[in-house]
This record gives sequence, structure tokens and C-alpha cells, in this order.
Amino acid sequence: MDWLFNCILPPAENFAQLAQAYQNQLTKPQGSLGQLETLAIRLSAMQHTLTPAVEKVFVSIFAADHGIAAEEVSAFPQAVTVAMVKNFAAGGAAVNVLSRYLQAEFEVVDVGLLDTLSLATVRIDKTACGTKNFSQQPAMTIAQLHHALNAGKAAVQRALDKQAQLFIGGEMGIANTSSATAIACALLGETARNLTGAGTGLTTQAIEKKAKIIQAALDKHQALLTQPVDILQTVGGFEIAALVGAYLFAAYNKLPVLVDGFIATVAALVAIKINPAAQAWFIYAHQSNEQGHRKILQAINAQPLLNLSLRLGEASGALVAVPLLQMACRLQTQMATFAQAHITTT
Amino acid sequence: MDWLFNCILPPAENFAQLAQAYQNQLTKPQGSLGQLETLAIRLSAMQHTLTPAVEKVFVSIFAADHGIAAEEVSAFPQAVTVAMVKNFAAGGAAVNVLSRYLQAEFEVVDVGLLDTLSLATVRIDKTACGTKNFSQQPAMTIAQLHHALNAGKAAVQRALDKQAQLFIGGEMGIANTSSATAIACALLGETARNLTGAGTGLTTQAIEKKAKIIQAALDKHQALLTQPVDILQTVGGFEIAALVGAYLFAAYNKLPVLVDGFIATVAALVAIKINPAAQAWFIYAHQSNEQGHRKILQAINAQPLLNLSLRLGEASGALVAVPLLQMACRLQTQMATFAQAHITTT
Repeated sequence: MDWLFNCILPPAENFAQLAQAYQNQLTKPQGSLGQLETLAIRLSAMQHTLTPAVEKVFVSIFAADHGIAAEEVSAFPQAVTVAMVKNFAAGGAAVNVLSRYLQAEFEVVDVGLLDTLSLATVRIDKTACGTKNFSQQPAMTIAQLHHALNAGKAAVQRALDKQAQLFIGGEMGIANTSSATAIACALLGETARNLTGAGTGLTTQAIEKKAKIIQAALDKHQALLTQPVDILQTVGGFEIAALVGAYLFAAYNKLPVLVDGFIATVAALVAIKINPAAQAWFIYAHQSNEQGHRKILQAINAQPLLNLSLRLGEASGALVAVPLLQMACRLQTQMATFAQAHITTT
Repeated sequence: MDWLFNCILPPAENFAQLAQAYQNQLTKPQGSLGQLETLAIRLSAMQHTLTPAVEKVFVSIFAADHGIAAEEVSAFPQAVTVAMVKNFAAGGAAVNVLSRYLQAEFEVVDVGLLDTLSLATVRIDKTACGTKNFSQQPAMTIAQLHHALNAGKAAVQRALDKQAQLFIGGEMGIANTSSATAIACALLGETARNLTGAGTGLTTQAIEKKAKIIQAALDKHQALLTQPVDILQTVGGFEIAALVGAYLFAAYNKLPVLVDGFIATVAALVAIKINPAAQAWFIYAHQSNEQGHRKILQAINAQPLLNLSLRLGEASGALVAVPLLQMACRLQTQMATFAQAHITTT
């Protein structure tokens, strides 16, 4: 797993400065495009250009099942993971609609479903048929963790091969908010009670039960929960590990990452804890309605672009934010300067 | 001005209910698309359909000069109004870039510039060469107010003639945040100090001076500031009046309106005070960085979609929010239902 720790270079500070100076010449009051200016400047630094673009978007959805689902921590039955993957394959899910709207390149990768589907539109890169139930034993072996991390790396390689300008990772896996919550608690020293939320739609009572199960698992595995990689192995999921691998390999390759909601943000948190330099390559799409997401975003000093009470996952929130990035780039690239427009401002 | 008070019908509640029920059948946890679901449901009710669409967007920018600019209430000189209209005509402004991105129909209308431009891409519907300085006298005559309101009505008629599915009004007019602030203070019973902001970029000291000038004008004209129409005449601007006319005529014609930032929201406030039924046809795009915008949005119980620290005006914030509406519609229209995807959720 040496590649996880590869030296990640920062975006080019000189291009950030040039872009800032250029933004100040455009025909608008300085700073009046707010976060859109910040975005365009960050993308300029990432792409080493004053004319950044994120027209080519690559979306990978990683799907896997979770042993912890046996504890009834989700409002949906475990079979919904595979059923939703079929829905992705058939083009009927939210992420399909949004990918078509954006003309984004879309793929779904089985990194650990219980069933194996033979559908042309599902890529198979399976680690195992679901993780183990982490309330009883570690979710995966170290070999399985390597496989899942590499599945994410491979997805980013496909994005790079297609000259993608933005990588978006998504996830599907019934019970994966339990796994993500456990990871975040272990990394941030939070209690399960503080970070556990409704997931796909639990009642208050069910959330309490879920928090107790997560806390008991954290207590049980305490000795194993010291390093981020070990935490991922012990209470993680294959799709979360794939996201971590994807994010780190994207950052290493200077490919901007647009991070989706709660689970994706937890994956970004793991990536940052493994390799802090990755953070500079992440853009946070939105603050979801999932309890705990706000706290994690604050912990990593992230400023999400949207706050629309989304809580669907599967990359949907990130896709919804893509037009903001595209418009930010076009504004910097296409607006006239005061000089070009012959406008004297004093 | 009888048409301002025309009976505005509400969106169709039965379609809202049908859309809500249909949203609950789509392959996602109920409510997990948050404000995007709310948007799609509202648009369903406005358009009397379960397959709403806002692909055809019509953008009118109303431009006018302000007598109050003589009081040096803006960070930019008054000549910038005309200069920016030339920039709109040449396609170099933020609103041009965003309109191209969205393939929106775009027009700029001179409703009261000091100069008269003979440019093919500027529509002339001039009320007068700028308003009077409202710190000294009413900004316009009643005949001028009628003209400006009708200029907005005419713009919406052009949108309707083009089968637009969404109307966006924008404004350009150096010093128009002073006018908008005065209107909002008069309508909401607020002091100028509470609602006055930086506009295009005033210093703290200059904001204080601006607030004093606005408060003095409010005090001077107090007897005239009782009815919304009179307030608009006394401290308004031609482009703000055009927005008010446009919003009311759009609502009357069941054409959804996407409201831009501070000045546009003040125009929406005037429209609602004239004809409260108009409110149901307004969608608020964003909360800007302008002091006072948040308070006005709260006063009318508006829930803006974005909060990106924008403060440019000229419809830019509304255009940035258009993809959210489009994606909301496509999600409702194109997602599979659980039944279609053969997914059992229990």
C-alpha cells in the first residue's frame, strides 16, 4: 500500500495568485462572485492555467454489502444494495439522471456485492461478497483492504485515461452510514451518539439502537483503532475503502475531486488522515441532512458549496454541485476585463 | 395600473399532492432529495403536470440610472451603469457568460439610462433619463412609475411569446442598492442602519454615510411612504419598478419567477405587498452577501436555494441557481419508481 503515502504535490500557488489578480480585473465588483471566485481560483491552481475547465466529469459509483446490516441498522433491507445496482445499470437512479444532465462519464463498480451480477454496465472488481459484521469481528482482512483501495485507484486511472477534469466518487451499500459513522468516531475521537444519524430514514428510536451498536463495536475493537488504515480495515466497507483509494490516487495525479455527502466525506477524512496533502485537491459539494456530516466538515475545515437537505448519497449531491464549478470556470474564462470593456471604475 | 391588482391564481394544489406522492415512489429514501423535491413539487403545481420542465429560461436585465448617485452612495461612478450595459450588449458580463452556459434567452432593456445607446442588442423602453435624487424629491412621477411597471410587463409578454418556462429579471443601475434599501425600510418598518450594506463595495465609513442619507430621505418623505406603489414612486428606481411589474405579470400568467439577489428580492417584496398571491410563483435563488438581504428573505419567509456569498446582481445569482431547478425537474421526470425497478423496500 506504499502508493497511499506517495508524495502529493500542492496545487500551484503562483497560478492561484495570477487567477486572483485576473479575477480582480473582470467586470464586476471585486469578490462579488463569492465562492465561485474561490472555486475558479482553486481550479486554476490545480490545473496550472488561468482558463480552468471541468467539462469532462468522471463518476464512479462503488457498491458493496455490509455484514453490519445483520444488526438491522438500516431502514432498508440488505437486498436493496444489489437492487439499486441493477437500477444504476438500467439508468433509473438519481445519479443516472444527473450524469445524463451533465453528460458525465458514469460507471458502477461492484467492489463487494453479495450477489454477482452479469450486466454489461456493471464493472466487477469484487473484493469479497460483503464485509464481515464489524460488531463481531473486523470488517475485512488486510488483503481485502488492499483490494478495495486498489479498486478505487483503478477507477481513477480510468478517469485519467479518459482525460477527466474532475473525479466524483459515489457509494451504494445498505448499512454503510453505520460503517462511516464508526470510522469518523474513531478518527475524530467522537462518540457514536454524537455522529449517528438517520441514514436512509431511521426513527429516533432506531437511531439510538444504531448508535449503541456502533459504540459497542468501537469499544470492542478499541485496540485496533489507532491508525487510519487499521480503522478502515476494522469498521470500514469495501466501497468506502475504494473511495479512499480513489481520492488519494486522484490527488497524487492532480485530478480535482468533488466530494459527495456523509460517507464520501468520511472517506475524504480517512484520506486526509493517511496523507494530509490530499486535502488541497478536494472540493466539498454539500452539507447533507445526515447528523454528523456538519461536524465532520467542520473538523476538516471544509466549506461545502450547497446545503439543500440532500441525504441520498450515490454521488448525487456532488453531481448537483458540478454546474457551480463549470459556471465558476466559464466566468473566469469568458468575462470581459474592465480594460476590454473600456470601463473606468474611478 | 389596474393590472397590478389582477387576481393571481395559486399553483394547482392537486398537482402538488400528486407530485409528492409520485416523489415517494421514486428509487430513493423518501425526502432524500431535500429542497430538490420541494422544487420539483412546486414546479409541478405551477405547470399543472407531473413532468415539469424549466429548459426555456428568459432573462431580462433592466437598466436605469439613479439621481441618488449624486450623493456618492456607490463605490462606482454613475457612468458605470451605461458602461456595463455596453458590456451586456457585447456579451462580456457575468450574466452573458451564464446565459450562454444555460442557453437562456437574454435581453437587456434600457428603462431609464442617462444616455441613449444605439446598439442593436439593447432594447429601448426608456422611462426618463434617470430618476430624480430621492434625497431631495420623489424619484419619479406617477406617469413614470406606470411606464416602468409596463416595461417589466412587456418583458414578461416577450417571455410568454417565446414559450418561456421560467422568468428571471435582473438589474443594473449604479446606486440602486440605496433605492432598494429605502424601499425595504419603508415596507418593513426597518431603519436604514439595519438594512444598509456595502453594495458594490463600500467601506464601513461609507456604509454609515449611505445609511444616514437613506434615513434622512425616509424621514423627509415619511408622509408619502404608506402604500407600496407610493413607496416605489418616491424612493424607487425605474429598473426596480420594471422588476415589480414583471414579477406581478409573470405570476398573473402562471409563469414561475426565479428571484435574484438583494434588489430583485426587494422588488419581489413590493410585488407581494401589492398582490400577496404573487408570492406562490416566486422561487428565491440565493442569499447574497448584501447586509439586509437575509432580513428581507426572513420577513417574506423565503428559503433561498444558494448561499455562495454572491453580491453581483444583474441576475447572476438567479442564473447560477437554474441548474438546480432543471435537475430537480429531470429527477422527478426521469427517475425509475421502486415498482419499475422491481425493488422491494421492506
